[in-house]
Amino acid sequence: MSRYPEIAIIGLGLIGSSLARVIKSKSLCDRLVLFDADVEVREKAVALGLGDVVADDIAQAVAAADLVVMAIPVGAMANVAVEIAPYLKQGVVITDTGSTKGSVIKDVSPALPDHAVFIPSHPIAGTEYSGPESGFATLFKDRYWIVIPNGADDADTETFKGFLSATGAIVESMDCDYHDKVLAITSHLPHLIAYTIVGTAFDLENDLQNDVIRFSASGFRDFTRIASSDPVMWRDVFMNNSEAVLEMLQRFNEDLSYLQRAIRWQEGDKLEGLFTRTRDIRKRIKDAGQLDD
Amino acid sequence: MSRYPEIAIIGLGLIGSSLARVIKSKSLCDRLVLFDADVEVREKAVALGLGDVVADDIAQAVAAADLVVMAIPVGAMANVAVEIAPYLKQGVVITDTGSTKGSVIKDVSPALPDHAVFIPSHPIAGTEYSGPESGFATLFKDRYWIVIPNGADDADTETFKGFLSATGAIVESMDCDYHDKVLAITSHLPHLIAYTIVGTAFDLENDLQNDVIRFSASGFRDFTRIASSDPVMWRDVFMNNSEAVLEMLQRFNEDLSYLQRAIRWQEGDKLEGLFTRTRDIRKRIKDAGQLDD
Repeated sequence: MSRYPEIAIIGLGLIGSSLARVIKSKSLCDRLVLFDADVEVREKAVALGLGDVVADDIAQAVAAADLVVMAIPVGAMANVAVEIAPYLKQGVVITDTGSTKGSVIKDVSPALPDHAVFIPSHPIAGTEYSGPESGFATLFKDRYWIVIPNGADDADTETFKGFLSATGAIVESMDCDYHDKVLAITSHLPHLIAYTIVGTAFDLENDLQNDVIRFSASGFRDFTRIASSDPVMWRDVFMNNSEAVLEMLQRFNEDLSYLQRAIRWQEGDKLEGLFTRTRDIRKRIKDAGQLDD
Repeated sequence: MSRYPEIAIIGLGLIGSSLARVIKSKSLCDRLVLFDADVEVREKAVALGLGDVVADDIAQAVAAADLVVMAIPVGAMANVAVEIAPYLKQGVVITDTGSTKGSVIKDVSPALPDHAVFIPSHPIAGTEYSGPESGFATLFKDRYWIVIPNGADDADTETFKGFLSATGAIVESMDCDYHDKVLAITSHLPHLIAYTIVGTAFDLENDLQNDVIRFSASGFRDFTRIASSDPVMWRDVFMNNSEAVLEMLQRFNEDLSYLQRAIRWQEGDKLEGLFTRTRDIRKRIKDAGQLDD
């Protein structure tokens, strides 16, 4: 197990506050300093006792840190990197928890000083809830935490991966572009689709909309859960992984048109064929140990 | 609470076997006769002790029934109605549990004798599992069970609704076309979308497909659950509610194109605007008491 003398977490939403909780509960550093741009969130963090110190400004938060975690929407990474850059100490490791990696590397790398080591990462974990009160110490347990090596020294990378493992996560290295492609299909596109269909229901005439809510069947209910995820975080994801998302969306649209045509022309065998194949994928995810139920 | 002297259930999948369980556990009839076209399913029903009698032919199953429940895929309704018609006793109430109501009324009504009372219905309840072993007695508890009056006598309808209430369901009457429209958006379209996106992932090149399964994030995992629902049941749903599904699909496609364009043109405000509105729908479903969590 690796630990750091001092860790700073910037951003105390679901991810940042969950990380703070597991760091404290497993004693993964000597001193945990927290910061959030929102004063109300900082007050909540104090009330919840999430860290050793809740700093009032970002410079103070990172000044003595050996590891800085930027747990903020990917659209905010560039500015935060610029803000913290002058205060970082020699040899500090910087990471982020963003769901897009190409954009974060592009935004953050130029801002950081040479004496900082940037190792981008992404915990594949989350719920539809946001804010410091929604975090919990076991959020990362048995979930993948992807690390993008990004040219860092092996020693730095191994220490960092050891720290992530200590949170309970399964740590894997991955190429940046490949990460963005995998996440586009497993996470970004499903969220886009869920947001769309719930929006479609929202725009129905009034009576029908009310009954959609009353008689909400299980398919739609699941979509509303996904579509209640943090709007700013997800706006930023689509703005920053647009290429991979648009590519997957095009494939999805082709496949949907095929089914649409099969419905219009009453070609039941085409539907049944696909519906049978998709069952198999579920089984394989279960076999990979990545189902909660 | 209304009950019937004798009830026959045709089709012992998730819905039929759950209904059998709740009928037995609450003693909602004197004699419960079960039938399934599949001999293996009948054997399982015997082993599970689901009814008083598991009949070997459908004529024998319905001959003395005061209520016949057709819990079968909607594409099988027409044939089963023809098969049971000659054996139905005077005044018997026939219902079905299909997810499309216009097609079932069209398929079943002409086949039934005048001395039978057809009251179509639809329990808005289910899981992704199928088969007699997947049913459970509380499946309908606090879920809506929609009744289409379909010109039946008030007395017959009230007795039937009283019986459905006794299963634990919340019973509501609804117009047939309206039902099919509401279900198209709350259930049928979400299933179609989930099947599509899981299919899209299935067709990815091999390495990527494996990693999609390994790193399956929460959005995609939910979709795979929906997309592991019974293929024949769902094929029939799309074949039999094609008009309403295609109408909703068109709206969905328009809305998705709007978001796709917003991503391509980096219009983050449009995305954030929608993502904020969709949160509200979730809250209203929760307020309506239709969330499990």
